[in-house]
Amino acid sequence: MQSLKDRIRAEATVIGTDILKVDHFLNHQVDVDFLQEVGQELYRHFQDEPVTKILTVEASGIAVAVAAAMLFHVPVVFAKKSASLNLDQDTYTSEVFSFTRQTSYLMKVSKRYLSQEDHVLIIDDFLANGRAVQGMIDIVKQAGASLAGVGIVIEKGFQEGGRLLRQQGIKVVSLAIIEAMDESHIEFREEQ
Amino acid sequence: MQSLKDRIRAEATVIGTDILKVDHFLNHQVDVDFLQEVGQELYRHFQDEPVTKILTVEASGIAVAVAAAMLFHVPVVFAKKSASLNLDQDTYTSEVFSFTRQTSYLMKVSKRYLSQEDHVLIIDDFLANGRAVQGMIDIVKQAGASLAGVGIVIEKGFQEGGRLLRQQGIKVVSLAIIEAMDESHIEFREEQ
Repeated sequence: MQSLKDRIRAEATVIGTDILKVDHFLNHQVDVDFLQEVGQELYRHFQDEPVTKILTVEASGIAVAVAAAMLFHVPVVFAKKSASLNLDQDTYTSEVFSFTRQTSYLMKVSKRYLSQEDHVLIIDDFLANGRAVQGMIDIVKQAGASLAGVGIVIEKGFQEGGRLLRQQGIKVVSLAIIEAMDESHIEFREEQ
Repeated sequence: MQSLKDRIRAEATVIGTDILKVDHFLNHQVDVDFLQEVGQELYRHFQDEPVTKILTVEASGIAVAVAAAMLFHVPVVFAKKSASLNLDQDTYTSEVFSFTRQTSYLMKVSKRYLSQEDHVLIIDDFLANGRAVQGMIDIVKQAGASLAGVGIVIEKGFQEGGRLLRQQGIKVVSLAIIEAMDESHIEFREEQ
C-alpha cells in the first residue's frame, strides 16, 4: 500500500534497529480517515474469502479490525489479554510471549464467539515475531474454525513472524513490509 | 437510543444487580453494523461542538470511539493502561481505580497528542462509577485542552459516575441509562 509506505517513510521514527514508532497515526493516536483506507485495502485482499468473523487482540488491533469489518459486515471478536471478572469462564486460551513487554500473558476468547462454523480473518496492526498471531491461530484451531488468512498493517520482515506463518501455508497480507531499518533509513520489501 | 435499549432488554444478561453482560455485541464481540448506528447517534449529539480529538481508553472504548470519529473526521487518542516500552516517556498520567478489576492502574497519554489547542470529546462503552472518565478528564485538564463532553453507550444510572459528572456541569450523553436491574428486569431512565 503505497500511501502507507510513504507515510511510514515521511513520519515514522525508528529507535535503534527494532522499534518503529507510528503511534501518531496507528496505535496510540489513530487517523481514522487513513484507517478507513487501510480497512479498504485489507478488504480488497480478502473479499473473495467467505469470512464470518474478524479476530484481533486488544488493544491496538481493534481499530484496524473494526475498519475492515465494516466492509465485510461481520463481527469483530477481540481476544482479551487478562482475565476480567466480567469475562466468561468458558474460554479458548493461549499463552503468548510479548517481546514488547518481555512477559507472557494469557490470550482469551469466550467460546461463545468462535465455533466450527466460522471462517476467521485475523487482523493486527503489527507483525514482528508473530507470537500474538500464533496465539490467535491456536484459538481458531481450538474452536475448530477455519482460517481465511492474516491481514497486517506493518510487518517487520526482518523478524521471523511472517516467514513462519507463510511456511505454514497461511495467506499473510501485510500492507507494508519493512526489510531493514535504522534511524536514517527504512527499506521496504518489494511487492510480488 | 431505542434500538440500543431494545437490544439490551432482549439480549443482555444481568448477573446479580451489578454486572450487565453485552459482550456479544459491544465489548468482546462487536457488531460493527450496530456500532455504526451508535457512532451516528453520538455524532448527532455532539456535532455542533468543534471537536478536534476523541479520547477513549483501551480496550473496549476503542471501537465506539473509532465509529464516532469517522463521522467527525478527527483522530482518536486512546489512553494506555500500562507502560509499554514503545510509549513516550513524556505522558499525561492519571491513577484510576477499576471496580471491575479491583485494582488501580496508571492511565497514560503521550503529551504529543493532546494540547491546549484541542477540544476533546471523551467516549467510552460503559459509565458506572465514572473513574475511567474522571481519569480522562484529569488528562484533558493536564493538557490544558477544553472538554466538549462525554459520550457513553451504556450508563449504569444507579451508580454515581453520571451524577458526579453532570454536577460538574459536564455534558454527558448516554445512549441508554439503566435505572435499576436484576436478573429478571431492566428499567431504563426516561429520556428528558
